[in-house]
Amino acid sequence: MNLEEKAASGDRLSIARLLTMIESGTPRGLDALDVLYSKSGRAHLIGITGPSGSGKSTLVNRLALELAGKPSDDLNVAIIAIDPTSPFSGGALLGDRVRMRDLADRRDIFIRSMATRGALGGLARTASEAAMLLDAVGFPYILIETVGAGQSEVDIARLAHTTVVIEAPGLGDDVQAGKAGILEIADILVVNKSDKHGADAAEHSLAVMLEIGEELRTGYSTKPRWKTPILMASALNGEGITELADVIRSHRSFLDESGEWKKRGEARVRELFERLLREKLFNDWTAKINQDDYEALIDRISKCEISPRKALADYLKS
Amino acid sequence: MNLEEKAASGDRLSIARLLTMIESGTPRGLDALDVLYSKSGRAHLIGITGPSGSGKSTLVNRLALELAGKPSDDLNVAIIAIDPTSPFSGGALLGDRVRMRDLADRRDIFIRSMATRGALGGLARTASEAAMLLDAVGFPYILIETVGAGQSEVDIARLAHTTVVIEAPGLGDDVQAGKAGILEIADILVVNKSDKHGADAAEHSLAVMLEIGEELRTGYSTKPRWKTPILMASALNGEGITELADVIRSHRSFLDESGEWKKRGEARVRELFERLLREKLFNDWTAKINQDDYEALIDRISKCEISPRKALADYLKS
Repeated sequence: MNLEEKAASGDRLSIARLLTMIESGTPRGLDALDVLYSKSGRAHLIGITGPSGSGKSTLVNRLALELAGKPSDDLNVAIIAIDPTSPFSGGALLGDRVRMRDLADRRDIFIRSMATRGALGGLARTASEAAMLLDAVGFPYILIETVGAGQSEVDIARLAHTTVVIEAPGLGDDVQAGKAGILEIADILVVNKSDKHGADAAEHSLAVMLEIGEELRTGYSTKPRWKTPILMASALNGEGITELADVIRSHRSFLDESGEWKKRGEARVRELFERLLREKLFNDWTAKINQDDYEALIDRISKCEISPRKALADYLKS
Repeated sequence: MNLEEKAASGDRLSIARLLTMIESGTPRGLDALDVLYSKSGRAHLIGITGPSGSGKSTLVNRLALELAGKPSDDLNVAIIAIDPTSPFSGGALLGDRVRMRDLADRRDIFIRSMATRGALGGLARTASEAAMLLDAVGFPYILIETVGAGQSEVDIARLAHTTVVIEAPGLGDDVQAGKAGILEIADILVVNKSDKHGADAAEHSLAVMLEIGEELRTGYSTKPRWKTPILMASALNGEGITELADVIRSHRSFLDESGEWKKRGEARVRELFERLLREKLFNDWTAKINQDDYEALIDRISKCEISPRKALADYLKS
């Protein structure tokens, strides 16, 4: 059996090796994706995002155990943890190790940490391709965990069929404002650390914000309606996790019945395809330009002799 | 006088109107940038990034006052606040109002909040163009404030000549890991809320992480050396702000003397130009394709009949 076949038969080591190839963008990894792509399209992609200190990793681990059910030899849950960590500090590796300790005895749960390496949009592509592979080899659930509320988090959340946004009490005074940006992408809201002071207040303010958002949207949205629930959880104590898994499954049913499952899948494909296309067009173009002319142009823009946009217009004309 | 001339002469209303045009991407705004571009290239762009709850906005306001010096009728400091807030919640507007109250009597300090609108990479472009305009009309200091440690924050920080990363004690237990990702882009580290419990510990762990990073880098970096300082501050009490302004000015001198100022400027131009080029190539391409064929292809990929990359290869061949 070759690597693709081994991966497709559930061999963890082969899956891990293919993921590394995909992450590094090697032709071998991309070829594997091509071969395995026809097997994909069945996994439920679940994006989980929340700030540092919200207890996200613990919650993701518990949720993975809950969704996986009884230990088995099947592939049950894959976790892609997007770690905003530099290659220098080795944070992604460290993260892996801590989590592997928690889930060490579970062959049916697979964890992969990915460090952001500072490449523009690179991570969204890699995460998307990794999810594709994990989907193709047969994981029914793929959890994609990201930090914070930045643009890239929103982009990665768009990958998912279901987006879970985690909040927790006591993360600082302007959490309210920071939260607003990702409320719109949330299919499910979780207030973690529900036993801590301020959890009820956090729930209340989320509810108010959701309500305002709903009112504003009702006027012109033709989207099938899913009412974003707010769940209370204490991942550390294992509370609220069963409920979260149930709601995630309900959301899947909603997606299927409303036709949103197909729509979200198509939107994902469209975005991915366009990204590939942009890369290809740019690479083809740079392969045939005169490098000296190009550098001279960059120099003129740097010296503020010509604006970037005018330079582009002139350059493409010549 | 037309709008560009008025803006260049320091008229706040004209500057604000041009910024709105640039933010909306109107041809009028882009034309204005072309016209004014030759006047740019002098401002010191200072990126300031830190998580929710680090007291970032207060610190930015204080720093602006410090850098501006005595009130005057000149243009002294511009603030671009990148607000991860949806258009629904109006958070960016609210942010503007709160800050305008603090700086209401200062005609020499100009504030602009920008909400992230979910467009891939759109914000980095807009922020870059806004900074270009504010540079061209004569602000010597431009502060670009972002939240968190996501990819987009790193991208926006790349805009800046000097990147200040803010931390504060008590923002949750996995702050340590989250920090690692942006340590590398930090030219200056600030532990804000230095009067709070845990500030010394935060400083210590930052120092340790910096040291590890330095050691790892020293081996292969040929970059001129700037030793990232860690400052303690309490923005609310006005402590440490004068020192921060001093260090920012020292960093500028370092950039000038080491040739890094020019290098960072060129890198910014290259990135901006490439982004424009990619957009242009893609738009030209989509303008001439057969929309039905394209949709049929997206449909086939969605049904997992053909992988995105194979589809692209086939499509470009035909």
